[in-house]
Amino acid sequence: MRGVVMHAPGDVRVEDREDPRIVEPTDAVIRVAAACVCGSDLWPYRGVEEVAGRPMGHEYVGVVEQVGDQVRDVKVGEFVVGSFFASDNTCEICRAGYQSRCVHAEPVGALGTQAQFARIPLADGTLVATPGMPDADLVPGLLAASDVLGTGWFGAVAAESGPGKTVAVVGDGAVGLLGVLAARRLGAERVVIFSRHADRQRLAREFGATDVIAERGDQGVAALKELTGGLGAHSVIEAVGTQESMMQAIRSTRPGGHVGYVGVAHGVELPGKELFFSGVHLHGGPAPVRRFLPELVELIWNREIDPGKVFDLTLPLEEAAEGYKAMDERRAIKTLLRP
Amino acid sequence: MRGVVMHAPGDVRVEDREDPRIVEPTDAVIRVAAACVCGSDLWPYRGVEEVAGRPMGHEYVGVVEQVGDQVRDVKVGEFVVGSFFASDNTCEICRAGYQSRCVHAEPVGALGTQAQFARIPLADGTLVATPGMPDADLVPGLLAASDVLGTGWFGAVAAESGPGKTVAVVGDGAVGLLGVLAARRLGAERVVIFSRHADRQRLAREFGATDVIAERGDQGVAALKELTGGLGAHSVIEAVGTQESMMQAIRSTRPGGHVGYVGVAHGVELPGKELFFSGVHLHGGPAPVRRFLPELVELIWNREIDPGKVFDLTLPLEEAAEGYKAMDERRAIKTLLRP
Repeated sequence: MRGVVMHAPGDVRVEDREDPRIVEPTDAVIRVAAACVCGSDLWPYRGVEEVAGRPMGHEYVGVVEQVGDQVRDVKVGEFVVGSFFASDNTCEICRAGYQSRCVHAEPVGALGTQAQFARIPLADGTLVATPGMPDADLVPGLLAASDVLGTGWFGAVAAESGPGKTVAVVGDGAVGLLGVLAARRLGAERVVIFSRHADRQRLAREFGATDVIAERGDQGVAALKELTGGLGAHSVIEAVGTQESMMQAIRSTRPGGHVGYVGVAHGVELPGKELFFSGVHLHGGPAPVRRFLPELVELIWNREIDPGKVFDLTLPLEEAAEGYKAMDERRAIKTLLRP
Repeated sequence: MRGVVMHAPGDVRVEDREDPRIVEPTDAVIRVAAACVCGSDLWPYRGVEEVAGRPMGHEYVGVVEQVGDQVRDVKVGEFVVGSFFASDNTCEICRAGYQSRCVHAEPVGALGTQAQFARIPLADGTLVATPGMPDADLVPGLLAASDVLGTGWFGAVAAESGPGKTVAVVGDGAVGLLGVLAARRLGAERVVIFSRHADRQRLAREFGATDVIAERGDQGVAALKELTGGLGAHSVIEAVGTQESMMQAIRSTRPGGHVGYVGVAHGVELPGKELFFSGVHLHGGPAPVRRFLPELVELIWNREIDPGKVFDLTLPLEEAAEGYKAMDERRAIKTLLRP
């Protein structure tokens, strides 16, 4: 089959890779209907993470082709959405809603879903089937559920977005934008996005943002405080993962408020004393997308939300390199790849 | 009046200080019935914080002597308990339960309650009167409520201690020990204290600890994991404030679990990536003791809890220096001072 491999920073190629097959009796193999490039794929692309011959991709929707002997619930021919961590969905950690830290968790990213086919471990725990074969226009939304929507949603939940709250969002990538959507769906009264890009501001407003702040860092914090009677937001979603964005998120939050951080922290060191005196709640990590998938699939299926709007570039799988480049150069928010 | 002043690390003296008087119309002046030495007073005593001629003490119970013109609820002659932050108890942050970060918060510590009298700002918001004059044996418990009990309680609440949970406590000082008491009162099924001191282990068991782990750091974490099916505790109270204790607390918590940290962080830097992948909730800071005071005063008044047991040394105010020394040398858990 054909699949994406990153050989070095900036060097993305589509190559012949071995066809995936059932390895464990709990596996499934899916024919990938759509995959995409994640903001986190840009870390190795930009040389922030090491990379040498890595199959890429951890977001996916597709049709089940084969299942292992112990797969009970997932059926061949079903259209399925999964998360970037395979999970058994039965252990104590999964039952508490932290499937990305399942005691048997396996990163799907290691298998590379930017490809024609993918092996998905722990299929019964990991995959959620749609009610039927989706219309073509629903596919991007379902694909978004597998990571960016699920991650933005977790950020909004971790930040305790809800009725009466002012929620601020640090980061105007796909996750931040879908954090806006999630915060509104969860009932937030006011949603403020930090963004200096007109196209992203527009999409943020479409997803329900009520205010936009173009300043960053401490100036951004000052602008937010001015909007919130000097107190800061009740809830802040952090969707970048740098030192600056984390500090901006913490400083934007009022005492007793909640920071939900979902940007993969790179080179971040949190100063203990400042954190202590901030009095905020801090929660985040790799999103337990599986917790939210049934609800998100239903919302998308019923056309109540359209997270697929974050894809502003669609390319054939063979042109994956251009998809990475467009995101790296911020010409695209998020690239959908069609195998 | 007589009061404690710290002139330099290790140099604590009881001196003549100016009598406090009403400065703001919202002030009260109290005759201190009992004060005490806090674990946090040992930071400057040990030279970790700068100090030069600082009046000491932020824990207090006493009888109201005078009130300012705008004080409405607090009456002269009442026996009162207050927290180490004066708060108006009416602003938006106070109403959300974060009185230690009240928009008008003032640190009582700057005023020095290890003394015969003390000025308490924002008296109506800060002070909670007992139902009458307490019996002598209740005074230590009420004094504990003003900080160490309130702080341990906040740690237990921030760690989401509750029924069915395993709660671990890092730190066997007065706050950690009262964190044990709080976790049990909040319904925790199992409470594990990390402690290597026989006298503190004994008191922890009296307060409801079910297990004791003598190991520290990563060995302590390993021992805790063995007790919890490899997962770690649901809730961990951090009551020290060092790099080692914070990392021990975070690593002792299962994914999705809660760390309540109340040790004042000194020189702590939290590694962002490890925190991210830990998947824990982190909440703490200077405890909003005022939130809990009415409930705690009632529990003590009705003799349902006896947090006063943490005082294992009682001295006249004039012997404050010995009280500090005994705590520094770990001969005493906590020193009560009688003016």
